[in-house]
Amino acid sequence: MLNLHYLQKSNIGVDQGLEWDTELKAYAQKLEDAAKALVARKDLESEYLGWMDLPYDTETLEGVRQVAAQFEHFTDLIVLGIGGSSLGGITILSALQHPYHNLKSDRDGLRVHFVDNVDGDVISGLLEVLDPKTTVVNVISKSGTTTETMSAYLACKVWLEAALGAEFTGRIVATTDPKKGILRPLAEKVGYPTLSVPPSVGGRFSVFTAVGLLPAVLGKIDVEGLLRGAARAQDEFLEPAAKNPHLQAALALHLYGLRGKNMVVFMPYSSRLRFLADWFAQLWAESLGKAVDKNGSEVHSGTTPVKTLGTTDQHSQVQLYREGPNDKLFIFVKVQNTGKNTPIPNAEPDQPDMNYLEGKTFGTLMNAELAATANALADAQKPSFMWTLERVDGENLGYLMQSLMLQTAVVGELLGINAFDQPGVELGKVLTYALMGRPGYEKLAAELEAAGVKA
Amino acid sequence: MLNLHYLQKSNIGVDQGLEWDTELKAYAQKLEDAAKALVARKDLESEYLGWMDLPYDTETLEGVRQVAAQFEHFTDLIVLGIGGSSLGGITILSALQHPYHNLKSDRDGLRVHFVDNVDGDVISGLLEVLDPKTTVVNVISKSGTTTETMSAYLACKVWLEAALGAEFTGRIVATTDPKKGILRPLAEKVGYPTLSVPPSVGGRFSVFTAVGLLPAVLGKIDVEGLLRGAARAQDEFLEPAAKNPHLQAALALHLYGLRGKNMVVFMPYSSRLRFLADWFAQLWAESLGKAVDKNGSEVHSGTTPVKTLGTTDQHSQVQLYREGPNDKLFIFVKVQNTGKNTPIPNAEPDQPDMNYLEGKTFGTLMNAELAATANALADAQKPSFMWTLERVDGENLGYLMQSLMLQTAVVGELLGINAFDQPGVELGKVLTYALMGRPGYEKLAAELEAAGVKA
Repeated sequence: MLNLHYLQKSNIGVDQGLEWDTELKAYAQKLEDAAKALVARKDLESEYLGWMDLPYDTETLEGVRQVAAQFEHFTDLIVLGIGGSSLGGITILSALQHPYHNLKSDRDGLRVHFVDNVDGDVISGLLEVLDPKTTVVNVISKSGTTTETMSAYLACKVWLEAALGAEFTGRIVATTDPKKGILRPLAEKVGYPTLSVPPSVGGRFSVFTAVGLLPAVLGKIDVEGLLRGAARAQDEFLEPAAKNPHLQAALALHLYGLRGKNMVVFMPYSSRLRFLADWFAQLWAESLGKAVDKNGSEVHSGTTPVKTLGTTDQHSQVQLYREGPNDKLFIFVKVQNTGKNTPIPNAEPDQPDMNYLEGKTFGTLMNAELAATANALADAQKPSFMWTLERVDGENLGYLMQSLMLQTAVVGELLGINAFDQPGVELGKVLTYALMGRPGYEKLAAELEAAGVKA
Repeated sequence: MLNLHYLQKSNIGVDQGLEWDTELKAYAQKLEDAAKALVARKDLESEYLGWMDLPYDTETLEGVRQVAAQFEHFTDLIVLGIGGSSLGGITILSALQHPYHNLKSDRDGLRVHFVDNVDGDVISGLLEVLDPKTTVVNVISKSGTTTETMSAYLACKVWLEAALGAEFTGRIVATTDPKKGILRPLAEKVGYPTLSVPPSVGGRFSVFTAVGLLPAVLGKIDVEGLLRGAARAQDEFLEPAAKNPHLQAALALHLYGLRGKNMVVFMPYSSRLRFLADWFAQLWAESLGKAVDKNGSEVHSGTTPVKTLGTTDQHSQVQLYREGPNDKLFIFVKVQNTGKNTPIPNAEPDQPDMNYLEGKTFGTLMNAELAATANALADAQKPSFMWTLERVDGENLGYLMQSLMLQTAVVGELLGINAFDQPGVELGKVLTYALMGRPGYEKLAAELEAAGVKA
């Protein structure tokens, strides 16, 4: 549920004259047209809009379940992927597994470890603590040329082969493009089980493909619920703007960006949703941070996502948010019911600083802090809006994730940019090749050396 | 080591005329005066500058070791603290323990779990997986009135008492003010072991007090090295600006803030330093985000810290950083030697997309990616500077943490603000009390109800 109370409270008459109801009416047609345009293009592979069909794709889930079935009795899954190949899985598992799943003795579901960096200490440290006989590795790269992922793959391959000999080939699942790239033929030649990422789905929109679903299935979380929630958001996408939360949120994000709030602070009030902020940050930054628009005009678009966590960051960031420059729009996520509704015990009945908590739950305290912060920020004319989830479960998480993808796509339409490419990371890749001495990059390597740049 | 290469490369002639050598000369006196003024005030308790003495304080460490000695054979430590009471410990332990310490079977040092939120699922989940017979709880609050921390304390107290009866009092260590507040008398009455936070040290500057040292000692990390490194930074603080890395970094941070870069992106290239970004974010935001300066004039100061991680966030944020608005200053942290110098095996010799990595280490790849990113950003006129640590160990981490505190304090001086208070979080606290029905806040509660604000 979308709640615009604090947005309206903060901005009436104070924030550069932005009056919500008027703006929504003025933009309604444009928003609805953007939604229609996106849906109309979704069957063109080159538009990278295939993610709008994923909530209804039971076939992919069936394929994932078949591959997963061989590993259900294993203890650990290592996921090798970076950016869009890891953040979705991290978000889902940290939200829906037991918060200390990996330390539990009676676990249902594998421990899932995401290797999303090229830190040698972390990679070798992980292989040191796991048993190769009960570990499955999932290497995720559409192209197979993602250096970070493939270097970790090399380390894992050697580790598995040393322990298992020829049998290791059954322990690496390759999630990659169905036809293109180098990982597909490599996997087929060696005999790795494979899963596909549809060509029409980019990395940061791939959470409901095999990329996110294999870790989710092996982690034993409610995958059907995730897809059902995502479908509910997708089903609402063509509703009129006046009653469409996805379009309204997109409008708020767009308008405040235009009015100079160059940051979007994503602040869930739930430790389980901590990594949803990371996932949103990638989705938002990589989709909307663009040098040129679709006509090739320089725009340098994109507001910067800032990931935070309530209540934790009240004791870290809220001082700045309240008293510092008015340069941010805040997105809060509230959870109506926490899983266990754990009560706060009245264990110090004589302490007035604690005994007033008697009979309350931690969830009530969390939500009181959220209301207090949202209110204090609105008082300081800092705009925010709030998503409320009934609880943190598959359905609610799937709904919000699909909604955030829809919102991002709509803002891309309003900005007139391509929200589905990432041209700005190319130079970094090429420079890395040159610095690592890859054949074919000698000229650039010499230039870098002359300029004093080295690894 | 501070490296300004990319700062100079990005800004010569392009960034609003900021020319580094000229600026440094112009500001040298002001910077040195700021350092002297801070040192001159450090013995006044009300100035909250006691953290400048901590690197030399062996007595505190001795006291911490004495308390810790009783628990060295335990399995787990739960730290109850939020903001400055947890971020320092989290940073130190994630940097210096084995990256998968908590999953290792042959651990040296306790597993340390930080409870820094009021999420009931997380608190009850943690107590579910730990054994109260071998767990020690450290409750950290200067005042004893931090609701988040004290509510978690109530849950832990009940849990320990249920398992241990009267013996539980030996299992809760209270880290608090030596005289003031409600936690000190409560602890002394019940008989909890206690440790002190000096009154002249604020939460976000408290990492080298018992707040950070008890988890560090029980986690068996090199605490002497930490303090030695911190002392090295402190020793350099009064050096002339021309050869003083702390003052130079402070100047870069200050100048770009003045010139409209309203974000500081902190981007270590090391998974071990991931949480250093979180710790810095609190230090920076809470110290410098202020509504008024020391004269009471409205300033709304403070640039926003953005926490990121290399290389991971190259596949998440760098698209925006390179192509989006030029509104950020970047701080990179490079690690010269990773712990094990893990080699990348040449396990796919026929793949040109992988075999060029032969003979390289993950550390080399990490640093090639860092150089590539810094260079690509400088090419796009995005300014950055870089700290290089020889390795991630106690001494290097201690050095950088003390330096970051010094830099923050100097920027506070240049801005003319009080970097050591946090008035902006007060309203949120009071609103929370009202929403939780605390006696004495009935009037505010009624106002909130009338305005439709509820938990």
